[in-house]
Amino acid sequence: MLTPDQLAEIDAARATPRPTLRAVSEGMEAHLYRAHPVLDHGFIRVIDYMGDDAAIVQAARVSYGAGTKHVQNDEGLIRYLMRHWHSTPFEMCEVKLHVKLPVFVARQWIRHRTANVNEYSARYSILDREFYIPAPEQLAAQSTVNNQGRGEVLTGEEAARVLDLLKSDANRAYDHYEAMLSQDGQQGLARELARMNLPANIYTQWYWKVDLHNLFHFLRLRADAHAQYEIRVYAEAIAACVKDWVPLAFAAFEDYRMGGVTLSGKAIAVLKRRLAGEAVTQEASGMSKGEWREFVEVWG
Amino acid sequence: MLTPDQLAEIDAARATPRPTLRAVSEGMEAHLYRAHPVLDHGFIRVIDYMGDDAAIVQAARVSYGAGTKHVQNDEGLIRYLMRHWHSTPFEMCEVKLHVKLPVFVARQWIRHRTANVNEYSARYSILDREFYIPAPEQLAAQSTVNNQGRGEVLTGEEAARVLDLLKSDANRAYDHYEAMLSQDGQQGLARELARMNLPANIYTQWYWKVDLHNLFHFLRLRADAHAQYEIRVYAEAIAACVKDWVPLAFAAFEDYRMGGVTLSGKAIAVLKRRLAGEAVTQEASGMSKGEWREFVEVWG
Amino acid sequence: MLTPDQLAEIDAARATPRPTLRAVSEGMEAHLYRAHPVLDHGFIRVIDYMGDDAAIVQAARVSYGAGTKHVQNDEGLIRYLMRHWHSTPFEMCEVKLHVKLPVFVARQWIRHRTANVNEYSARYSILDREFYIPAPEQLAAQSTVNNQGRGEVLTGEEAARVLDLLKSDANRAYDHYEAMLSQDGQQGLARELARMNLPANIYTQWYWKVDLHNLFHFLRLRADAHAQYEIRVYAEAIAACVKDWVPLAFAAFEDYRMGGVTLSGKAIAVLKRRLAGEAVTQEASGMSKGEWREFVEVWG
Amino acid sequence: MLTPDQLAEIDAARATPRPTLRAVSEGMEAHLYRAHPVLDHGFIRVIDYMGDDAAIVQAARVSYGAGTKHVQNDEGLIRYLMRHWHSTPFEMCEVKLHVKLPVFVARQWIRHRTANVNEYSARYSILDREFYIPAPEQLAAQSTVNNQGRGEVLTGEEAARVLDLLKSDANRAYDHYEAMLSQDGQQGLARELARMNLPANIYTQWYWKVDLHNLFHFLRLRADAHAQYEIRVYAEAIAACVKDWVPLAFAAFEDYRMGGVTLSGKAIAVLKRRLAGEAVTQEASGMSKGEWREFVEVWG
Repeated sequence: MLTPDQLAEIDAARATPRPTLRAVSEGMEAHLYRAHPVLDHGFIRVIDYMGDDAAIVQAARVSYGAGTKHVQNDEGLIRYLMRHWHSTPFEMCEVKLHVKLPVFVARQWIRHRTANVNEYSARYSILDREFYIPAPEQLAAQSTVNNQGRGEVLTGEEAARVLDLLKSDANRAYDHYEAMLSQDGQQGLARELARMNLPANIYTQWYWKVDLHNLFHFLRLRADAHAQYEIRVYAEAIAACVKDWVPLAFAAFEDYRMGGVTLSGKAIAVLKRRLAGEAVTQEASGMSKGEWREFVEVWG
Repeated sequence: MLTPDQLAEIDAARATPRPTLRAVSEGMEAHLYRAHPVLDHGFIRVIDYMGDDAAIVQAARVSYGAGTKHVQNDEGLIRYLMRHWHSTPFEMCEVKLHVKLPVFVARQWIRHRTANVNEYSARYSILDREFYIPAPEQLAAQSTVNNQGRGEVLTGEEAARVLDLLKSDANRAYDHYEAMLSQDGQQGLARELARMNLPANIYTQWYWKVDLHNLFHFLRLRADAHAQYEIRVYAEAIAACVKDWVPLAFAAFEDYRMGGVTLSGKAIAVLKRRLAGEAVTQEASGMSKGEWREFVEVWG
Repeated sequence: MLTPDQLAEIDAARATPRPTLRAVSEGMEAHLYRAHPVLDHGFIRVIDYMGDDAAIVQAARVSYGAGTKHVQNDEGLIRYLMRHWHSTPFEMCEVKLHVKLPVFVARQWIRHRTANVNEYSARYSILDREFYIPAPEQLAAQSTVNNQGRGEVLTGEEAARVLDLLKSDANRAYDHYEAMLSQDGQQGLARELARMNLPANIYTQWYWKVDLHNLFHFLRLRADAHAQYEIRVYAEAIAACVKDWVPLAFAAFEDYRMGGVTLSGKAIAVLKRRLAGEAVTQEASGMSKGEWREFVEVWG
Repeated sequence: MLTPDQLAEIDAARATPRPTLRAVSEGMEAHLYRAHPVLDHGFIRVIDYMGDDAAIVQAARVSYGAGTKHVQNDEGLIRYLMRHWHSTPFEMCEVKLHVKLPVFVARQWIRHRTANVNEYSARYSILDREFYIPAPEQLAAQSTVNNQGRGEVLTGEEAARVLDLLKSDANRAYDHYEAMLSQDGQQGLARELARMNLPANIYTQWYWKVDLHNLFHFLRLRADAHAQYEIRVYAEAIAACVKDWVPLAFAAFEDYRMGGVTLSGKAIAVLKRRLAGEAVTQEASGMSKGEWREFVEVWG
């Protein structure tokens, strides 16, 4: 995934700590620059970060010093802020990542607009021959109940055929990309044109910088069970770093966002009737069938 | 590009004007819903708009009525606002477009984040067999002076070979996309996975909504001679609509942004020395060679 | 609140409907330009809008025509989008308001950054002598349980004293503002300086443009019972217009956002135990006292 | 300006450097936490920062390591990026400030929306008795040529009268603020209401976090000679820190933005005619009188 040169650069960057007066998160320092593998050729790397749990508290209080020294107070305040949707204190932390990811994942990712991005330019440079090929256990059929999801894992000849098509098409497309670019005995097509032959499973990479509030929003949607597997694994790798970076904020996020649910007015009414001992049917709930199915998934 | 059914829908939408009390731009009404062709299978269509030249003036004045009735005053104020980088009055106009475009163009486009986007979902739906294949006069070699640009147009055998590769690879990729999706005698791969086999010249489409200030920023970068041809033609098609929508604002934009230049402190000093009759060389200018080359392109 | 001239301008703007091919919301046309009074001198006026319920559906489907004609389908899709936090289709509607409001309300309002604003400039122009003076039933004491809230209504001498101070200070500040600005026998202080003498209950006004998704976010926070009364009444006046503009989207918003609650993982666990017949105490809930109090407010 | 307790907290924060593997800017470390005084009671303090000049280069190259070690190459690339309006690499640096400022300055400042803000809450807390009173040399008359600007400095009795009004009104407003809040023998008005009596020259404070690209935009508008003096001095104090933080980027910003000008198409044409020896009048320039005046200010 990384070349020896790249690994050496990373080691060099990690070799020489320097003194700073800024807030330092020990948990995040351990991640800095290191590549966390994702999928077959991708990774996420933390390049830089700003702030820690105390910085959230400090901003919420617009304080002169470093916030209280009592972790318990900080935790209570952070949970309060999360519960009441106070977003600005969480915006006071920032993280910068280097991510290598397939183009079709990048296209989903970029829909989160409140972030800063520098992507490797295929107009300016030549992309590497690296494609995402799903592991056999990820080769799933179209879901029969959900237009936007996966069903059972493919097996046998069908699976073999799919893998073979994905691999051979990717390699042929890349061969032709190189053939069109080549200046050997010909002029060579412009890079900004040749790239159009490359499939959506080719890897790209970018620097991505985002504040903690918007990162939590990203994680809530993309580390969710309904997200496509290929972006979810990136979200999970990032979440593991965030947990080490701002443990109190992450715990509140897990409780209120990842582990929480939103109830509609109708759902509240049904639960109250149930708590009062009544058995409520879908028909009597006022909910549509889809809504009721989702409700029952959580509440039985 | 559009099916007879789609054209009939557009005609139907244009058939029945309804009364409104809102600001109306006659110039823009003429464009509504109509598809302006771009590239071989793409288009832009104006779906909706808010405001007109008078609305810019009205917002700048925070006024109760419809702004002055004297077009000349409106024009002067609009030019003043543009010259002095007052962005908020231009943000008071908004436009919504339906765009059909190749994926590699969409990837460049989406880097403009201050806009609203709904893209056709290849996770949910099946894409059509439509690919961008450059016209012969757009099949350019890599520039020899600019890493990020085009040189001469390819001709003869090389051109033929490139076109053949682009066409055959696109069709084979789509054949295999269909083969993997097929549920005929097999389960059929999930759509969210099968799409990864499709190349970057396949067409996608989206609804894109943006305010006039941010649209001008988009047009300045993308209707520029340095922009890639394939996005520039979209920018030009949009610019033609904007000109009919807000003619005064567009004229100011053309004069101050599209037709204007930004001079550095060093460039101002050189021009002043030239105006005083001095001949200034690159060495004496304090500019780098690249900077000087760009300076000379404008000023000789 | 409005001068006869301003009312005449509004009548003139409403007198002449013009034909348009755009989406039209009959409900919103009825509101256009009219001033809905808020507080003692404030108002909100709808100046323009883009889109309607069908436009949300149309964008969600990236469709060619006007979306389905079956209202039930549209309603179901809109509810689905709201329930699953799909924000981009709601961003496809936009509204522009003219608002007159006290400065301290404007300062809270502007914290919602994803909107476009043109405010009347006290640097450039002279503000009017109009101040917000609370109605007697809004003259509340500091809450004894909530640092950020109101308690009982003040009465008797204390209320009279407060009203007298607010009125006399505002008038004196404005007298001195005028005296400093006056060029009668003196040079007259710059407007950009003189304005610093004016209190936070003076009225300002602005044009505010926002998309429906971000407007819903604003309404959820500001039409909420915990919002300060003086901004809540603005949010309620806007909500009444939105209800007429996009009735289906507004109904979904009311059910899922205004009437809904978010449950943490801990709260879900407690409710499940209760549904199973168990009596759970705060100590056994894992929640803090504050969290438990908020939980009990909803669930008893 | 700062209490002994606050100064002690700042000294404590500066006393204990900790090791980090992140990019460190020595120039910025020297500023951390220290209060740079602005106006009579205000300040700016750098609370945290992310990145340095090398980080801009690294992001532009989407590189694995720390960018080139050749400062000259970095400088050339940074100047190139600035000249060609590449904004995203500059967005990869971030700074967090603690600012104490008069409310009327805060209201202008907040118009820059692409930033994160946590302001001290006058709904929750009680503001201090601190007001901005202009120094005598800043007590300027309204400009006679510019609706939005200052003319000559006031002197003598008029100046004395203005200072006296500003001071006495501020103090009376604060006395009454305290009187209304007091719970001594009365209930005490809610803080969220009492604050409305305070004038716009009272000091507030906030944490403000912004990326370098948007900070440059802020500085270009607010450190400009046309900005109001009271916000310009904040911009200048921040600029002095930025210069120490990212010296290469700041030098490029000074040359291309602060020291640069934008020429319209019309202005280019006039300059070219002048360079060819022609004397061009306003009438023959195609410019309005205002435009011509601004043109002549730069070019004579």
